[in-house]
Amino acid sequence: MTAVTGTNTQQQFLDELVQHGHFFPSGEKGVYGRGMIFEEVRNRFDEFVTRVGADDKPERPRFPPIIPRRTLEKAGYLKSFPQLCGVIYSFAGKDAAALDLAERAAQGQDWSMHLSMTDVVMVPAACYPAYPAMALRGPLPKGGVTLDLGGSYVFRNEPSGDPARLQMFHQREMVRIGEAEDILAWRETWMARAKNIFEQCGLNASFDLASDPFFGRGGKLMANNQRQQSLKFEALVSIASAEPTAVSSFNFHQEHFGSAFGIQLHDGAVANSACLGFGLERITLALFRAHGMDIAAWPEAVRNCLWPSSTGSARQG
Amino acid sequence: MTAVTGTNTQQQFLDELVQHGHFFPSGEKGVYGRGMIFEEVRNRFDEFVTRVGADDKPERPRFPPIIPRRTLEKAGYLKSFPQLCGVIYSFAGKDAAALDLAERAAQGQDWSMHLSMTDVVMVPAACYPAYPAMALRGPLPKGGVTLDLGGSYVFRNEPSGDPARLQMFHQREMVRIGEAEDILAWRETWMARAKNIFEQCGLNASFDLASDPFFGRGGKLMANNQRQQSLKFEALVSIASAEPTAVSSFNFHQEHFGSAFGIQLHDGAVANSACLGFGLERITLALFRAHGMDIAAWPEAVRNCLWPSSTGSARQG
Repeated sequence: MTAVTGTNTQQQFLDELVQHGHFFPSGEKGVYGRGMIFEEVRNRFDEFVTRVGADDKPERPRFPPIIPRRTLEKAGYLKSFPQLCGVIYSFAGKDAAALDLAERAAQGQDWSMHLSMTDVVMVPAACYPAYPAMALRGPLPKGGVTLDLGGSYVFRNEPSGDPARLQMFHQREMVRIGEAEDILAWRETWMARAKNIFEQCGLNASFDLASDPFFGRGGKLMANNQRQQSLKFEALVSIASAEPTAVSSFNFHQEHFGSAFGIQLHDGAVANSACLGFGLERITLALFRAHGMDIAAWPEAVRNCLWPSSTGSARQG
Repeated sequence: MTAVTGTNTQQQFLDELVQHGHFFPSGEKGVYGRGMIFEEVRNRFDEFVTRVGADDKPERPRFPPIIPRRTLEKAGYLKSFPQLCGVIYSFAGKDAAALDLAERAAQGQDWSMHLSMTDVVMVPAACYPAYPAMALRGPLPKGGVTLDLGGSYVFRNEPSGDPARLQMFHQREMVRIGEAEDILAWRETWMARAKNIFEQCGLNASFDLASDPFFGRGGKLMANNQRQQSLKFEALVSIASAEPTAVSSFNFHQEHFGSAFGIQLHDGAVANSACLGFGLERITLALFRAHGMDIAAWPEAVRNCLWPSSTGSARQG
């Protein structure tokens, strides 16, 4: 496998996933259905993360994968990642336009002239809806707030032949909002927990300083700044690319979201925040890549960690 | 409560949901975060449906909430419901355009001139991605196929002040593809099961022939046709509108999807299909509406049905 080029490796891995019923092609890059076994592994990993984080006693709200367009605008996302955004358009015309739209669509022709922007956009990272929701509740309690947002669908406009780069995927995200010191300590704790999680899953993860894919020429400055301040760390695992793939990230936002959405500490000061996320589909793919397509043949230690005995052997695949 | 007009009732119910931490406003109609208790009820109802349908031994694939635009075009959705569709646009320009986009967005001005149509759209009903995926696997086995798609997010462009009308919500959908006779019998079975489910949950559901909200003048004909052929049934429950709200539907598609996506029976004939769905947020709302905001005070019978004793009393709220 190591002899084939990156793209061939990715196509080969994708073919294997489809053959084993783990992925269903949709005809579009980065958009796949997923089989029962894949989902079983994804959910078991998700539950493993829940067990590891239980001591945090987080609040567990859930948010849909769309947010108001205004939230994305206020968060400053469009300055940093316009190329990745997803904005929902729809049809607001009358009968004649609807007829023309349907006819063009049936013939596979352009029908974009009949659409206009709605007030909602795709959630780009699981934590975005949480900040305005927390701000609305008024000043934070002493000690701040810890959120577990579960596995949330997020969207990225980046069609790719790499099966580990999806246009929509589950980010298992945790958020901490409060004072900088507490938040940085919490991020440290989770980096240690994550290291342990990946080890127990038999994944060879490396941790490193990282930066986001900021857009354009100005983006290079932003990325350098982010690295210099140690704002972002990533856990990387080999999946199907020449370079290891980021499967988890640990992000300190300083006052960015607190200030954008007006989140106050108990004493009225602007709140700091951090979030950390596990890319659930990527981690599931990494597990199939590392341990093989047949989960019954996975190493005993990995199976025991994802399917602890109390959950019943019948579900061990 | 019965004395206030529809809109006041809806606003009052929404306020109550927010006060009790069941809904988090986002600033946009039909887009809400949901609290832990709301999610607990939603998931318990979802598990109840799983128990009831276990005898079907369905395959359980999962699909993300976006599909290729081409799938929506081929399915004929745009002829019927152009007003409800969601098409994802993004940015594919260079540095100067990105700067202008970000500046306009920051100032709350129109930035739509910088966006263009991508190749993906929102899933309008949970079953749409399943048809092309099944077609790709070749002719169906004898007896056809039964799918349980779980709780899938679907999108509808219909912002509304009614908390039971969300722009994005979980449809718990089951699909049967095969011969017409088998499929109609399966739909009958599920209508009886659903009646039982709602009774056990203490919801007063009525079942009725129904039609979809087809667009425009031509839509009236399509709706009449659908009713005359008994293609759609709905279960309706009072939530926060003057009229009862549809919480479940049972739809026979005849050869519509089989023919659009080329799904063949074992003998090469075009497959028929049906789907049925439970609107999970609507049903959860109906439960809060019927039994009150505090789940600890819900009727014993309802609690026993959603939290059967084997799942542990600690989670009974």
